[in-house]
Amino acid sequence: MTLAEKAGQLVGAYVGPLGDVDLSVDDAAALVRDENVGTVAAFGIGISPHRNPERLAEIANRLQRVAIEETRHGIPLLLPVDAVHGHAYVDGATVFPHGLGVAATRNPANERMASDITAAEMRATGANQAYGPTCDVARDPRWGRTFETYGESPLLCSAFSRAAVRGFESIEHSPRVAATAKHFPAYSDPAGGEDAAVVDRSSSTVHRLFIPPFVEAIDAGASVVMPCYNSVDGEPAHGSRRYLTELLRERLGFDGAIVSDWGGIDHLHEDHRVTASQRDSARTAIDAGLDLISIGRDEYTAHIRDLVEAGELSERRIDEAVTRILDLKQSLGLFEDPYVDVETVKSTVGSSDHRTAALQAARESQTLLENDGVLPLSDDLDSILVAGPNADSLRNQFGGWSVQTPDPTTGSTVLDGIVERAGDGTSVRYEQGATLRDQRDLEAVGDAATDADVAVVAVGEGWYYHEFGPTELIGPTGSFPSRSLLELPDAQRDLLETVNETGTPMVVVAIAGRPLALSWTADAANALVYSYYPGSEGGEAIANVLFGDHNPSGRLPISVPRSASELPTNFNHVAHPTPIGADEHPDTYDPLYEFGYGESYTEFSCRDLTVANSRIGPAESVTASITVENVGNRAGDRAVDFFLRDEVSSRVRPVREHAGFARVSLEPGESTVAEVTIPNESLAVTDSQGRSRVEPGVFELSCENCSTTVTVEQTNARR
Amino acid sequence: MTLAEKAGQLVGAYVGPLGDVDLSVDDAAALVRDENVGTVAAFGIGISPHRNPERLAEIANRLQRVAIEETRHGIPLLLPVDAVHGHAYVDGATVFPHGLGVAATRNPANERMASDITAAEMRATGANQAYGPTCDVARDPRWGRTFETYGESPLLCSAFSRAAVRGFESIEHSPRVAATAKHFPAYSDPAGGEDAAVVDRSSSTVHRLFIPPFVEAIDAGASVVMPCYNSVDGEPAHGSRRYLTELLRERLGFDGAIVSDWGGIDHLHEDHRVTASQRDSARTAIDAGLDLISIGRDEYTAHIRDLVEAGELSERRIDEAVTRILDLKQSLGLFEDPYVDVETVKSTVGSSDHRTAALQAARESQTLLENDGVLPLSDDLDSILVAGPNADSLRNQFGGWSVQTPDPTTGSTVLDGIVERAGDGTSVRYEQGATLRDQRDLEAVGDAATDADVAVVAVGEGWYYHEFGPTELIGPTGSFPSRSLLELPDAQRDLLETVNETGTPMVVVAIAGRPLALSWTADAANALVYSYYPGSEGGEAIANVLFGDHNPSGRLPISVPRSASELPTNFNHVAHPTPIGADEHPDTYDPLYEFGYGESYTEFSCRDLTVANSRIGPAESVTASITVENVGNRAGDRAVDFFLRDEVSSRVRPVREHAGFARVSLEPGESTVAEVTIPNESLAVTDSQGRSRVEPGVFELSCENCSTTVTVEQTNARR
Repeated sequence: MTLAEKAGQLVGAYVGPLGDVDLSVDDAAALVRDENVGTVAAFGIGISPHRNPERLAEIANRLQRVAIEETRHGIPLLLPVDAVHGHAYVDGATVFPHGLGVAATRNPANERMASDITAAEMRATGANQAYGPTCDVARDPRWGRTFETYGESPLLCSAFSRAAVRGFESIEHSPRVAATAKHFPAYSDPAGGEDAAVVDRSSSTVHRLFIPPFVEAIDAGASVVMPCYNSVDGEPAHGSRRYLTELLRERLGFDGAIVSDWGGIDHLHEDHRVTASQRDSARTAIDAGLDLISIGRDEYTAHIRDLVEAGELSERRIDEAVTRILDLKQSLGLFEDPYVDVETVKSTVGSSDHRTAALQAARESQTLLENDGVLPLSDDLDSILVAGPNADSLRNQFGGWSVQTPDPTTGSTVLDGIVERAGDGTSVRYEQGATLRDQRDLEAVGDAATDADVAVVAVGEGWYYHEFGPTELIGPTGSFPSRSLLELPDAQRDLLETVNETGTPMVVVAIAGRPLALSWTADAANALVYSYYPGSEGGEAIANVLFGDHNPSGRLPISVPRSASELPTNFNHVAHPTPIGADEHPDTYDPLYEFGYGESYTEFSCRDLTVANSRIGPAESVTASITVENVGNRAGDRAVDFFLRDEVSSRVRPVREHAGFARVSLEPGESTVAEVTIPNESLAVTDSQGRSRVEPGVFELSCENCSTTVTVEQTNARR
Repeated sequence: MTLAEKAGQLVGAYVGPLGDVDLSVDDAAALVRDENVGTVAAFGIGISPHRNPERLAEIANRLQRVAIEETRHGIPLLLPVDAVHGHAYVDGATVFPHGLGVAATRNPANERMASDITAAEMRATGANQAYGPTCDVARDPRWGRTFETYGESPLLCSAFSRAAVRGFESIEHSPRVAATAKHFPAYSDPAGGEDAAVVDRSSSTVHRLFIPPFVEAIDAGASVVMPCYNSVDGEPAHGSRRYLTELLRERLGFDGAIVSDWGGIDHLHEDHRVTASQRDSARTAIDAGLDLISIGRDEYTAHIRDLVEAGELSERRIDEAVTRILDLKQSLGLFEDPYVDVETVKSTVGSSDHRTAALQAARESQTLLENDGVLPLSDDLDSILVAGPNADSLRNQFGGWSVQTPDPTTGSTVLDGIVERAGDGTSVRYEQGATLRDQRDLEAVGDAATDADVAVVAVGEGWYYHEFGPTELIGPTGSFPSRSLLELPDAQRDLLETVNETGTPMVVVAIAGRPLALSWTADAANALVYSYYPGSEGGEAIANVLFGDHNPSGRLPISVPRSASELPTNFNHVAHPTPIGADEHPDTYDPLYEFGYGESYTEFSCRDLTVANSRIGPAESVTASITVENVGNRAGDRAVDFFLRDEVSSRVRPVREHAGFARVSLEPGESTVAEVTIPNESLAVTDSQGRSRVEPGVFELSCENCSTTVTVEQTNARR
């Protein structure tokens, strides 16, 4: 390959408007032909105007044909998409709950299935690289990407990241796509929750909290890793040899491709100001270990050629990166057949099997936070008022990284679900009452609520991404939803007050990407269901739960704070002293709802927490079990969370860490034993260099008000 | 010396109740006699019942006599006190503004003088070690110790820490006391602002932000350093060899004594849980580099003896620590004469010279944030209403680390100051209207405000320390003032609204330890003066400003945020990208009032920002100047702040750093050139290991809407 051909493999293009450059499919094809560009994000991303699945397959085929037939070596293209919760930038695709919702299910099989189906829908349209999973561990709910995460437990994030990678990368049920573990090493705790702001955390915190899901994703077979936009300890990840080469390649052993997040290279000179020019940024990023400049176009192919010719970038490093990209394309089978069958697209994208899986995940994610007995709704109701900004909006219940405009049309809203389920004997009236930010006819709401037997009000957040953009959809910066406001805006609060004042039982469904500070709502509502972003089947799933066809079993994957002013509110906060006495401090962890909280329509009792061996060696794992009994009157699923606390360790540790989880299904009166294996790594203490080691001593293991101890016995073994 | 005699020198005792142990002076004397304890905090601390200055001198003499006459080697005692803003736990002592107020003066001579006088008042009563200065750099105003700091600029903290150390340690105006630079390495940015919670910041941030004031304090001659209670990167400072020995001794070259903060050693096993027992904690702390366990009593003397005898602690390490303690006592002249003359105490403590200095500092600290022309008050007013919880409370205007109960009696309150200044022709009526937390007679306030020509309402916070304790003074945890509430509580807000509704001009004086989020107040008030905790002469100082006898010149040493939910709000935040566009982000720094803000009764104009050399070598400093002209009608002082921005650097840096400040006095129409020398260190970029280096390139220097550039030219020199 010539230098120019190599340079092209390290650079991507896109279709749509980005900054000042709006590229058509023809433009992208020209970049493939003329600049040897080897990657094109032509659809399945927010900027692309192309949404029709059959059209997408044609675009994919066309671009691949240019690459195969009109370039010297005929190297096929990577076609990446933002398939964050389904192939959701495509009309009619199956849209799964976002990460937070899936993690609430405590059932990684849901995420495995979601990614499997996403891979199938992607490959049907010709896309072959998914920009996911999001391995970031949530910490600050002000962050606008909280919804993409699997919550605040590194264990949940690890388990669900692993499941997602397996779903994307396995060929068990569908053709493979490349999974992209993102955003390395730490994106999710930016200063003040502001998107892409510095992650100013100590090295031991970075290693203890943020790295483990990447270790799992890599172990599960992720082909690609994407750096974060942020700087961490003074180094922007995209230009950091320390993070990309020393940590990711050498310490974690990752040998796949490292691809830039979109603006990540330009940020080096434009924002972080660690380089003086775009050319410098190209050199710095590639030197640091980056293999693909995802949207670099001809600007970056020129820089790479120039840098190598000037002797500022070694051709050996370029060859290494090219090899990784070609290996990736090879492993995806693109050299054998890069084309897709346009005829089969329709039967794959959004198929009823796929939707059934999404419905299952959405159902299991519903998290019941309050219920005075109003739920499940009786089948005998005469009338139901359905209200609220999220009662009849697919866009709002999809959330970001999905079709945005025009409103998506495939799926069921809360209103659809309730109308469908309520049946002919029950009249369902809909009054919006408020958009996300603005008041609507509250008098009509009041009248309707007065007349109704029950009111279901769906409130929360809508479509946004990054720093609550784009403004053309959300309104001026600072409009709800915004970083510092975790409470509902006035319009929604007024709606709830209007309904509440009628005395009609009020069921609140919160559809939102973040754990909102709903103290007033929790007090006022007769029932409160947290629905996260439930995706295309969300309305049916919610109706299933409201009417008791599905007994809710979701458990919070993140703490719900009382207010943004009290943050951080994390269950696994680090132990610390109270210099003038513990009674002088309000609780460090005092959420509105704790991590792991979630109610059911039945009652469960837990007992007999036991460990297989109460004394273990420092390299052993812990097998723990607890007996769960359904002591109520309905069948239901119950998830249980296990926590570990290290009594004494050489370094300060969290007051508790999430160490295991399990989910059981029980008929009334039935009991079973839920068992988890807590891997040895969960016992280890992590130092500033990221070395972890299990120290001898006593650990407290707790689960659902039961506790026991495990003693690690002294040996000299080191992991 | 025997091992027991050595152990005693490494351990302190106290007088008063602490935990379950209440020690009398007799008990402390017995510990000196029987356990060779070499340090006693007998007074000048919150727990000691002793406040009368002559009684204190007698206690000091008595304890020294036991040490000299009743122990084998006659080694005198260290007698440390919490002299944080004057010898303020002593009745009648001169109480200076707390750190935040002094930093607002931009005049380090005020702090030098304060420490000098504090040393004189301390030595008069026999105390010889001050637990100060506080070198911590404020970041999160939720923290209950914000008031002790010199604000959020590392430069201000460095300059004022240096001045404080010089005042304590110099013998120019008064006998020396040992200065204690605290709290190493980083206390002031605990998670969520909770006192003593983990400081979870990256290593480069710790080195860049928090270490510089300690470097200055050590360079200025601080005899003692005190570790922080917190853990930093997994290591509690009190048990960290990395921080105490590798960083403080070996890197920073500190060869004085390292003494524990009070509970700091017990916290290792009780809270941080990095040791299994108190004995373990003693070993860990001393091994780490700690020389004195400040309140260890016989428990710790026993541990030390036992650890050495068991071979778990080297006698060589003990000898090193003992040598440091004895050297300190020697340097303080205690071996020559440890006694004080009880007869001279009265003429020293709270002398009129001392109070004049405190008045000067308090005056210069007053920071005018709003003024529609109501200030300065006319001499012709018929009547003034004085109201608010802080209008007539010395305790509230002292703030923490001062006499707390019964209320202090020496000093002037806002009411005193106004009554004194207003003179006979003006009637002054006082209606409290609200305590800090509770409503009082608002009807009376409304009536009085209606009748008055102007209302001065003093609101804010009162006495607290650490996590807003103690509860017996403040009320239950979570009462105002508390961590997450930066707004005024309802009772104070109601008072302001009552006055405001009368239409009488309203001057609000904020006496508070933190930058409160006073958005509503700023809008409603005709004038707003920020007074911090102004100390014993605060009332007179405030009256001087209100009536225009002193033209206000204070400049905010810390940003005033809009709300706690938007934190952090720091002027020197780190640069970062905005992935979907800058117009999608609200400003990262959007305070109610910026760092450095402050108005005057005259107008100043600034021009001609120049640097002596616009091109310098990498080891050179920058001399910069700006012309300041008083273009108004009154004489006044003006402080100017200089900021540097590194255009490109190898690591991500703050968007700007505070690089210099100067203060000038100008008659109307007069102009002068304010000059600063920006030390070479201010240009340097700091890496994760704390190494700093000036990199070639362009820096933008700005001051008061002027800007220019300085170019550091390429050489290979390294600092």
